[in-house]
Amino acid sequence: MQDRLPCGVTIGDPSGVGPEILLKAFAAGEITWPVVVFGDAEALRFYNDHLGYGVSLRSIQSPAQYQPDALNILDPKIIGYSEITPGKLNQKAGYAAREYVIAATRAALAGEIAAMVTLPMNKEATRLSDPTFTGHTELIGALCGKDDVTIMLASDDLIVTHVSTHVSLFEAIHAAKQARIQTIIELTVNAVANLIQSPRIAVAGLNPHAGENGLFGNEEINEIVPAVKWAQAKGFPVQGPFPPDTLFYMAVRRKQFDAIVCMYHDQGHVPLKLLDFEGGVNIALGLPIIRTSVDHGTAFDIAGTGAASTHSLIRAIGFAVKLARKPS
Amino acid sequence: MQDRLPCGVTIGDPSGVGPEILLKAFAAGEITWPVVVFGDAEALRFYNDHLGYGVSLRSIQSPAQYQPDALNILDPKIIGYSEITPGKLNQKAGYAAREYVIAATRAALAGEIAAMVTLPMNKEATRLSDPTFTGHTELIGALCGKDDVTIMLASDDLIVTHVSTHVSLFEAIHAAKQARIQTIIELTVNAVANLIQSPRIAVAGLNPHAGENGLFGNEEINEIVPAVKWAQAKGFPVQGPFPPDTLFYMAVRRKQFDAIVCMYHDQGHVPLKLLDFEGGVNIALGLPIIRTSVDHGTAFDIAGTGAASTHSLIRAIGFAVKLARKPS
Repeated sequence: MQDRLPCGVTIGDPSGVGPEILLKAFAAGEITWPVVVFGDAEALRFYNDHLGYGVSLRSIQSPAQYQPDALNILDPKIIGYSEITPGKLNQKAGYAAREYVIAATRAALAGEIAAMVTLPMNKEATRLSDPTFTGHTELIGALCGKDDVTIMLASDDLIVTHVSTHVSLFEAIHAAKQARIQTIIELTVNAVANLIQSPRIAVAGLNPHAGENGLFGNEEINEIVPAVKWAQAKGFPVQGPFPPDTLFYMAVRRKQFDAIVCMYHDQGHVPLKLLDFEGGVNIALGLPIIRTSVDHGTAFDIAGTGAASTHSLIRAIGFAVKLARKPS
Repeated sequence: MQDRLPCGVTIGDPSGVGPEILLKAFAAGEITWPVVVFGDAEALRFYNDHLGYGVSLRSIQSPAQYQPDALNILDPKIIGYSEITPGKLNQKAGYAAREYVIAATRAALAGEIAAMVTLPMNKEATRLSDPTFTGHTELIGALCGKDDVTIMLASDDLIVTHVSTHVSLFEAIHAAKQARIQTIIELTVNAVANLIQSPRIAVAGLNPHAGENGLFGNEEINEIVPAVKWAQAKGFPVQGPFPPDTLFYMAVRRKQFDAIVCMYHDQGHVPLKLLDFEGGVNIALGLPIIRTSVDHGTAFDIAGTGAASTHSLIRAIGFAVKLARKPS
């Protein structure tokens, strides 16, 4: 049964806070589901020693060898103990982080792990060895042969998806086309239905006041309204487009909606991070595997100090397990 | 002395919630500063009767005739008792609302009132008699001979200004030019200095992650950074541009900034309304007079029921008084 399989957790860039929050959470007993770790054992040993977590580490050859009495590691042996540089850009660390993700994705595709949870990479570090690298999402999408992927961002108060993410605001406007909006609505409806019974999904407008009937832009009339009508005709529980500044209030404070389909990155990220800066979780949509990730970066400024919060990691594992348990 | 003068309050569209919240606040003793009302006495009498507020109404000919024992009204006698239609679009009401604003602006320019506070107009209703009407801000700006005006939105948690407001997102990107950003930064610095000692002002990026060094758009590099440098060279307490999704968290939760200069309407409106939907206040910047307004509309769905909150009105008067008291 899939839900008995361990979750795979990648440690992210060995120079960032990934390894230490994994150790910290494990040491504190905050990880209650079986996990196998994709990352260098020497990186974990480094932070385990320096921060005194005292976690038992065991190297394994495949997820099937998982045993509950230690942190089980699938170790590619890329980076050595003395090569770990907390908080510093490190080409080898950037390269290694990418390899962990590739290994975990392959294990997920092979059905060896129930889901994968990723800890932060440093884009700049990985680009030193792979200049084409644009991000976790695109890398995993390519490995899965999927390019219509997106990220759902979830906190206790709010779930958001985005029609576009890491593009300029100018490009985001051009990306807000009916076909793409429909794709994101459908991915959102399917994903939220795995988390919430009878979900209510709202679609945000692109323009102030959702364009006020074409007074401030026509994207609502030409692209968003047709996409919402298409979704409603398919029986999806979708409404909109709503004026963005009213919609987030309606969803969060009035609890009128469970999730919001956003038209661009900051439309969803600004309110979500304002509500729950450390606890947000990214959930990949449009993949044949389950993948969640923490909603923070490598935090080089505090890497190696043990100060980073485990909250987002715990929640990322929690969402992965919830999605893995759901019969699909 | 200017700060002994009454504030002028326009009642807004007589079909909306403006007249009733003014009466409700006055009846409850929530208005602690002398006010004179710009609006039809018959409209106030209508809501006073129907909602039973029992407020004493007195018509006066000029603000100098203010007396504290009643609600003092400068009455243009435009709309009659039987012509009041709560919650319904009404051409005469839309026309009247515009006249109240004109009268109050002239009184403020003449130094007869310390400040003006405006209650909501209905844009559609006013357009039935004045198709060129685009909003309060533009009307008052034109009467003052100023076109470089903007609105500052203030709540307890956050103060925001905007490089552009009621234009499409596409136009907003094109409006985010260095000269305009500098104007808004300077207006913001001057205005916030009247409210907060040693203010700390942040400038938001336009693109996700503030463009990530040109990876997601060049507006930060070409327009925003030069504007911030210009402001810093002038000694203004300004920093930025910051990634928007981190900045609102830094300002609101970490209290690192007192005000944020936003690049477009929803960048500031989404977080502010999420934090304080009913209590936000609009403060006009770039005018020779003091003008604040409530941050809600005519609320036709509840007009005439007495349900509308007086919170934003009370705070709008409070900010007007605070600004009027400040020696300029």
